[in-house]
Amino acid sequence: MEKIERPLLKLTGNEHRHLAEVLRARTGDKIILCPNDGRDYVYEIRSFDKTSATLSYVNDCENDTEPELYLAVFPSLLKGDKTEFEVQKLTELGVKKISPFIGDYTVQKSEKSERLRRAAHEASKQCGRAVIPTVDDPIRFSDIIPALGEYDVVVFAYEGAYARGKRLGDVIKKSARRIALVVGPEGGFSEAEVKMMSECGYCPVTLGKRILRAETAAIAGAAVIMQLAGEWE
Amino acid sequence: MEKIERPLLKLTGNEHRHLAEVLRARTGDKIILCPNDGRDYVYEIRSFDKTSATLSYVNDCENDTEPELYLAVFPSLLKGDKTEFEVQKLTELGVKKISPFIGDYTVQKSEKSERLRRAAHEASKQCGRAVIPTVDDPIRFSDIIPALGEYDVVVFAYEGAYARGKRLGDVIKKSARRIALVVGPEGGFSEAEVKMMSECGYCPVTLGKRILRAETAAIAGAAVIMQLAGEWE
Repeated sequence: MEKIERPLLKLTGNEHRHLAEVLRARTGDKIILCPNDGRDYVYEIRSFDKTSATLSYVNDCENDTEPELYLAVFPSLLKGDKTEFEVQKLTELGVKKISPFIGDYTVQKSEKSERLRRAAHEASKQCGRAVIPTVDDPIRFSDIIPALGEYDVVVFAYEGAYARGKRLGDVIKKSARRIALVVGPEGGFSEAEVKMMSECGYCPVTLGKRILRAETAAIAGAAVIMQLAGEWE
Repeated sequence: MEKIERPLLKLTGNEHRHLAEVLRARTGDKIILCPNDGRDYVYEIRSFDKTSATLSYVNDCENDTEPELYLAVFPSLLKGDKTEFEVQKLTELGVKKISPFIGDYTVQKSEKSERLRRAAHEASKQCGRAVIPTVDDPIRFSDIIPALGEYDVVVFAYEGAYARGKRLGDVIKKSARRIALVVGPEGGFSEAEVKMMSECGYCPVTLGKRILRAETAAIAGAAVIMQLAGEWE
């Protein structure tokens, strides 16, 4: 749904199905629509049939669930449905952009972007976000390096960082407005990848003494960055 | 596996299957066994057949993956395999004890504890922990209240906390050694439950402006508590 048509609106297809089957909405119910412009639009259901619902506009207001921090996560593609799962959780946590990559040790070589975008869309609805995170098409690891140049702070989750004593708490300041977190595949980053990021000045960080699964690292890392940046206050 | 028998050891059943099918170990390989006593025992595979493996002791050393912080999570039972999933992630994050409860709005009324304990066991193996977290049998919400008295700090994830301005960063100090995190079911805590916890002086905390799914709240909350307590340094 890209544009809100006032004062009457017809919902069909997936949106109609979500209304009927997930929300189990009925005529007379009020629902909130978020056309990805940062506002919540309240509509009332006027009529309902098997393939469409007709809604009338009630009012609208600003949605305040968006973090000020622009956090982007660059995760390796993962096996099975783990990338999709990661997208769901990162959306809830307020991540603005998810840009998956294929690295030297990435086993999963492709992923349907449409599936990941649907996961971001569904999770946004679920958690009340009015802006759906951007989900990029997967690219090669080397191609994320230039994109990382746009961030104030770039960190990558690296087991080797434990011995070298990098602390996320020292690296993430409340003043940082654009942060990127890079997380490797199940088998970790290759030495060449670690070298490439280190040479750009990007910061290896530890997420504790245990080896986290790749998806756990992305979720735990994003949560801690949000908290450190002041978004849990 | 409760006890390490030196100098020779025979593995059968699940442990043998894990060795053969997951690790794909072969005669001559060295493996690390963790009998839940905080130490890593290195053994070499001497012989291998269809139902057992015979190992010989090489050496042992302290396993240093255990956090100093004793973090216990009290999560509501969740629908489907979500509690199991939560146990896996909390184990990776270093949680010492998981004590599920059935609250006023809990939909899932029972869970096979054996299944949850197996998830903790498997995740401990995967992330290299030498101590498997305790997973208690599910109890009623009112019965967790006395157990919470054993902790220095008790926090519960509560959407209502956002407006009231409680910050996890102010509540969790590096000096705290025993912390409990309580997370409600899909439908949240009932008013009576919030009142019960507040009257005990337990602290409602916000995990950001979006409504997290119950399992996301447990994982994100545990990760941030670990980091705040100094376990990611």
